[in-house]
Amino acid sequence: MTTYTAPARDMQFLLHDVLRVSEQDIPGYAEMDRDFTAAVLEEAGKIASEVLHPVNQTGDTEGCRLENGVVRTPTGFKQAYDQIRDGGWIGLDLDPEYGGQGMPYLLGTAVGEAFVSANMALNMYWGLTHGAINAIHSHASDELKRIYLPKMVAGEWSGTMNLTEPHAGTDLGIMRTKAEPAEDGTWRITGQKIFISAGEHDLTENIIHLVLAKAPGGGPGTKGISLFIVPKFLVNPDGSLGERNALSCGKIEEKMGIHGNATCVMNYDGATGYLVGELHKGMRAMFTMMNEARIGVGLQGYAVAETAYQNALAYARDRLQGRDVTGPKNPEGPADPIIVHPDVRRMLMDQKSFVEGARAFAFWGASLIDRSIRAEDGDAHGLISLMTPVIKGFLTDKGFEATVQAQQVFGGHGYIEEWGMSQFVRDARITMIYEGANGIQALDLVGRKLGQDGGRHTMAFFEMIKRFIKENEGNAALKADFLDPLKAASKALQEAGMYFMAEGMKNPHNALAGSYDFMHMMGHVCLGYMWTHMARAALEGLEAGGGDEAFLKAKLATGRYYMARQLPAVGAHLARIKTGAAPVMALDPEAFDH
Amino acid sequence: MTTYTAPARDMQFLLHDVLRVSEQDIPGYAEMDRDFTAAVLEEAGKIASEVLHPVNQTGDTEGCRLENGVVRTPTGFKQAYDQIRDGGWIGLDLDPEYGGQGMPYLLGTAVGEAFVSANMALNMYWGLTHGAINAIHSHASDELKRIYLPKMVAGEWSGTMNLTEPHAGTDLGIMRTKAEPAEDGTWRITGQKIFISAGEHDLTENIIHLVLAKAPGGGPGTKGISLFIVPKFLVNPDGSLGERNALSCGKIEEKMGIHGNATCVMNYDGATGYLVGELHKGMRAMFTMMNEARIGVGLQGYAVAETAYQNALAYARDRLQGRDVTGPKNPEGPADPIIVHPDVRRMLMDQKSFVEGARAFAFWGASLIDRSIRAEDGDAHGLISLMTPVIKGFLTDKGFEATVQAQQVFGGHGYIEEWGMSQFVRDARITMIYEGANGIQALDLVGRKLGQDGGRHTMAFFEMIKRFIKENEGNAALKADFLDPLKAASKALQEAGMYFMAEGMKNPHNALAGSYDFMHMMGHVCLGYMWTHMARAALEGLEAGGGDEAFLKAKLATGRYYMARQLPAVGAHLARIKTGAAPVMALDPEAFDH
Repeated sequence: MTTYTAPARDMQFLLHDVLRVSEQDIPGYAEMDRDFTAAVLEEAGKIASEVLHPVNQTGDTEGCRLENGVVRTPTGFKQAYDQIRDGGWIGLDLDPEYGGQGMPYLLGTAVGEAFVSANMALNMYWGLTHGAINAIHSHASDELKRIYLPKMVAGEWSGTMNLTEPHAGTDLGIMRTKAEPAEDGTWRITGQKIFISAGEHDLTENIIHLVLAKAPGGGPGTKGISLFIVPKFLVNPDGSLGERNALSCGKIEEKMGIHGNATCVMNYDGATGYLVGELHKGMRAMFTMMNEARIGVGLQGYAVAETAYQNALAYARDRLQGRDVTGPKNPEGPADPIIVHPDVRRMLMDQKSFVEGARAFAFWGASLIDRSIRAEDGDAHGLISLMTPVIKGFLTDKGFEATVQAQQVFGGHGYIEEWGMSQFVRDARITMIYEGANGIQALDLVGRKLGQDGGRHTMAFFEMIKRFIKENEGNAALKADFLDPLKAASKALQEAGMYFMAEGMKNPHNALAGSYDFMHMMGHVCLGYMWTHMARAALEGLEAGGGDEAFLKAKLATGRYYMARQLPAVGAHLARIKTGAAPVMALDPEAFDH
Repeated sequence: MTTYTAPARDMQFLLHDVLRVSEQDIPGYAEMDRDFTAAVLEEAGKIASEVLHPVNQTGDTEGCRLENGVVRTPTGFKQAYDQIRDGGWIGLDLDPEYGGQGMPYLLGTAVGEAFVSANMALNMYWGLTHGAINAIHSHASDELKRIYLPKMVAGEWSGTMNLTEPHAGTDLGIMRTKAEPAEDGTWRITGQKIFISAGEHDLTENIIHLVLAKAPGGGPGTKGISLFIVPKFLVNPDGSLGERNALSCGKIEEKMGIHGNATCVMNYDGATGYLVGELHKGMRAMFTMMNEARIGVGLQGYAVAETAYQNALAYARDRLQGRDVTGPKNPEGPADPIIVHPDVRRMLMDQKSFVEGARAFAFWGASLIDRSIRAEDGDAHGLISLMTPVIKGFLTDKGFEATVQAQQVFGGHGYIEEWGMSQFVRDARITMIYEGANGIQALDLVGRKLGQDGGRHTMAFFEMIKRFIKENEGNAALKADFLDPLKAASKALQEAGMYFMAEGMKNPHNALAGSYDFMHMMGHVCLGYMWTHMARAALEGLEAGGGDEAFLKAKLATGRYYMARQLPAVGAHLARIKTGAAPVMALDPEAFDH
């Protein structure tokens, strides 16, 4: 019932007119010319629309089934997965040494967005593999890399991350899963992990679990945690599959959404594991995986909203109800299409201005990752580290909101499963929760990232915006609609930061009680910054002529909408922050009943 | 897995300390003393917790099934319905002439909240009957009343409302269902209606459909519409059930939530109908039903949020993760309960301050209905008419938001169906859509209600707040925390109203583009007004002594939270409104693709 078309034109605009990739001094970027990225995006878009999206709704309806320890994915998932694997998409941006194509992470992000938009639940199977590969790549021994990476990069084996236990989610320090050393240098892993996405399935011949466990001799809390590779099937020295390892899927959870992805309870019963990186330093390795995963979840947040928006737009143009109060727009028909009504327009503009701003933010973030890794730029690393909780928390909160709004455009039909909008909402909901619930992202931002490296990256962030405003203030077309509101919002954000510094010293609760609002303020400032960049590029394009004039004008109008109608939210956030902890903590835990 | 306890203490506080019911000059209110309402609420709360809530989650899981034209409700629904019926709860606030108990609508609202909180899907079966009864009571002939009302008031027969058709939702003027006169004075109804809640089920022996249809000779659009009673079984002159009428349930919809309530496609194939009220004046009768239904949906919005809040609170006290940054609160345990964390407290305070404010708003609204009907007070009628779209739109938007937040407190467990939080979110979602999607409520508010009767009720609303502020400004304990923010918010709302008057004259789109924001501003002002009333009552109670001091202090703290942290949202709404239609309507319908 729903459809999806990859927004290739918008992606090209971002890559070439806003980020100007081929001019950037990042290894691998010079090859990214317009024709090349157009070809990649066209092919990815085709697969997204024709292979992945057609099994999205059926995947939701059918869900996964656990039968005799084996998980059956929904009809068509295997065939779709095979096409992704055979096309080499999984290794698009991975190390050529292990069979990857070595493209920039930025291009992987653009392709990833299209795949997630088309079928979030299915994309997760290789999305998690991607994270597992990077953790192994960064931390495991050469031997482990040689054994596992080629098969994983090729998509023949998939990967998972095993952190959560029934009593230990955010607080990993209290986990109970144990690792005992065996005589042959391997480890025996025993314990139960929950919420393991793609923990068991029928898409690949082997599943490589990355498992956090406590090995003897570590300190208390997270200090004692180590990371292990625990494969579903042990691997023989010649690379062929050996015995089944002592692990199993005990249950798959009935969830609100992403039914096509199997969320497993995993039982490890003395399973053979291989230490990744140093003993008792597992958290560091896991963070590699988690940071990538967080950015990936931020991408899911707006990617699902994009598909919901496309379908809401089509419905708003098609559905005839009522008349434009200023005069009929479809006088021959029984009523006007609902897109004529200002309140329907408001909903569509909210969604469009969010999704396009979010896309720019995610792409910019991806370019920072490339700059950090490929150009070994420490400042870029610091900046993306600061941005990670904002990308995750803000884009998923707002992405969910936008998806709910898209559903709202459908009226009663939005509530009926057949129309597909309910699935988008149910799928999008998880993005606010997993990989660290959004409250944890806010805590990470305010409690850790703002002050990291002496606050250097935070200062650089504000400096960057200030410099950008200064460089462009002569541009009259940008001034009132973009630069002025950006300046005001950025100032408000700085004011909030100052408040935290002054009042957080007295009582850290004063900062933490405002952390969530700060994350949202920062998200708005980032999107405002992105919109100002996009507006500048659109104005340049219009001046140069010869481009897609209608697209560039729509871009400017959408940006003006964001600046005028979304950015003012920062004022309310600042007001909340400046109340401090007092109203938030006024009630004792016992006093909450009414 | 979930639990529910009716907030009887808070309800009693509202009835007796805030609304001071027994002092009010409204027929039937004198009998509502503390002991009496306490007894009613206790009994209702018991049924809610012990009878209705235990079949809430199973009702969601099982859903309804259509078998050979018969709808089977989930296990236990019939037994629970029978207890509600036998207890006389359906007729609690209905006309004694037809078997009701004649209690005020306000008391019915309090009881209704508990029933909805416990099991929204089940409550809908008699909730819709209630609306159908009132439409018949207000508009039908004495003969029809005599035949249908006693059985409906007793809950032996249920009622429905049939408005929507596949191509006609909001725009009822384009409906196609036809009514043809028969020789015996009855009518033959032919057409298809969709989204008919409780359209077919096994809880009652007969179902009385109220159906809108076009009879010959009416004007175009809604002018030609008439209202008919179309019973599932025809009724013999002696009141016994006769032949099956020519109507049937063609399908039940697969929905996002409220699975326990059967949403039916109803086919009328020349079914026998009886005209209600005047020919071609059906819309007026339907509005009686719809206005009541809208207030009922507003109540659903916060009632579901209440249950979600109760469960989130219990989880936050129970779940151990991490430590309070200012020092452990549960040093003997492996971690502190998550309620120690400021961001978890923020989520709980957001929910608590919304739900309690919403309850006050709904109860106040119910007392206006009583004043309007029982005391025949035209001003009260005008005021509740103005408030109706706000109660519906604001309380359901915010109720959904609060329910999502309650789910968020559960982290990953919130996403797993077993824990029950997903159901609350899925159930709450419909309240923003049905009985007029919330955008339609905003349109009703700004396009119709603000200017109704020459704007008299709007002016009276602002006057009432102004007077209240003036009367209390000597109260130092109220001034800074309550009166000042209320004054500022009310001023901002007036400013928005002025903007609409000035700019809406030039182009009505300038008002309609801001209608949604206006509805939210007005909702905040109403809740701010309620909180100030509650704070005053709490202060008086504390001064008088002898009351529940902990409860009254918590009430004040919760109110301060609302005023300090929720009310500032009006600023952002005002900023959006004052951008006018230009940014909203800047893109042509063709320019929305990207």
